Amino acid sequence: MIVHHLYSGGKDSSLSAWILTRLGYEVRLVTVSFGTLDNWRFARETAERLGFEHQVLYLPREVLERAADMAVSDGHPNNAIQFIHEQALEALASLPEVERVSDGTRRDDRVPFLDLPRARSLEDRFNVAYIRPLLGLGYKTIRELTERLFVVEIRESEELEKADYEVELRHVLRERGIDPLEIFPKRHYQSRVLGWRGEET
Amino acid sequence: MIVHHLYSGGKDSSLSAWILTRLGYEVRLVTVSFGTLDNWRFARETAERLGFEHQVLYLPREVLERAADMAVSDGHPNNAIQFIHEQALEALASLPEVERVSDGTRRDDRVPFLDLPRARSLEDRFNVAYIRPLLGLGYKTIRELTERLFVVEIRESEELEKADYEVELRHVLRERGIDPLEIFPKRHYQSRVLGWRGEET
Repeated sequence: MIVHHLYSGGKDSSLSAWILTRLGYEVRLVTVSFGTLDNWRFARETAERLGFEHQVLYLPREVLERAADMAVSDGHPNNAIQFIHEQALEALASLPEVERVSDGTRRDDRVPFLDLPRARSLEDRFNVAYIRPLLGLGYKTIRELTERLFVVEIRESEELEKADYEVELRHVLRERGIDPLEIFPKRHYQSRVLGWRGEET
Repeated sequence: MIVHHLYSGGKDSSLSAWILTRLGYEVRLVTVSFGTLDNWRFARETAERLGFEHQVLYLPREVLERAADMAVSDGHPNNAIQFIHEQALEALASLPEVERVSDGTRRDDRVPFLDLPRARSLEDRFNVAYIRPLLGLGYKTIRELTERLFVVEIRESEELEKADYEVELRHVLRERGIDPLEIFPKRHYQSRVLGWRGEET
């Protein structure tokens, strides 16, 4: 039972990947890139430390440009992030070898998040199962599992050390002469999974 | 890490219990009873076959009577089932030794189901974590895991062999001289977990 899991190298997508292995799935981690930067390498590095197979899924540059249009027009990034995530899930689900897709979205997330009709639509249109291991967990449970499992580095924000969509979105905004800080909320800290805490290898 | 898991002996609550153990939790199964019948024994029997600790949580008879009022007034059982489930979660969460509560509700369930504000309210009011292992799984995933794990018996409906809320609700309706078939949709088959398929014991 192989599952293709959208992976950023962060805590949530790492915890989800671990849960999938505990349920008996063979997990293939997949990081989305638009090819404007190589920040997907941070996800690969974490994937290797955790012992997972990892691949990059390139999405068309137009998807990123359209997301940037949305972010500029809205003045905030939520719809843009949602749009990219849906495009990523659809691109992954449409690959012929893919039967199950997964991500690290949480119960308490606003974006990216597929509501029930969208989740079912994804499954039906692409004939896949869509698995969200964190959906039934609250922040306390996610925190206790993450702390038990992973060594996490928390440091002041240096965006290029992450492999999430936001980094390339910020990059393309800067290319357009727009300061991403006008659109994205400021974040002082970010976290990155460095490896297993010990008992899991 | 102990979790108290609402348990009927059915496929969904059994699968949820297994997932919780795979995540490293020590699982205590809890079956609700109003004391009008001893159908909780079916849940205990399955719990013992699966090797879990099991206890019965008695709820006040008034809860069942109020649920019956709702079912009669509505002409269908949805609000009544929802009401009982919320009362069960709250009663469990309010026990002093309980830090984590769990159930087998699914992404595709209409009732019983706690929406996000209700789920957060439960966690906040009782200072517990609320874990729903099946919430992020669709029917395909639940089916493939269930088939891999459990021996399931499917037979024509004989209501007394289940330990879900419905059985006592039907019973109290019958006591009032009301035919439950006027309120509940007809079901021809039901399933019951008999034990592990083999690799899990």
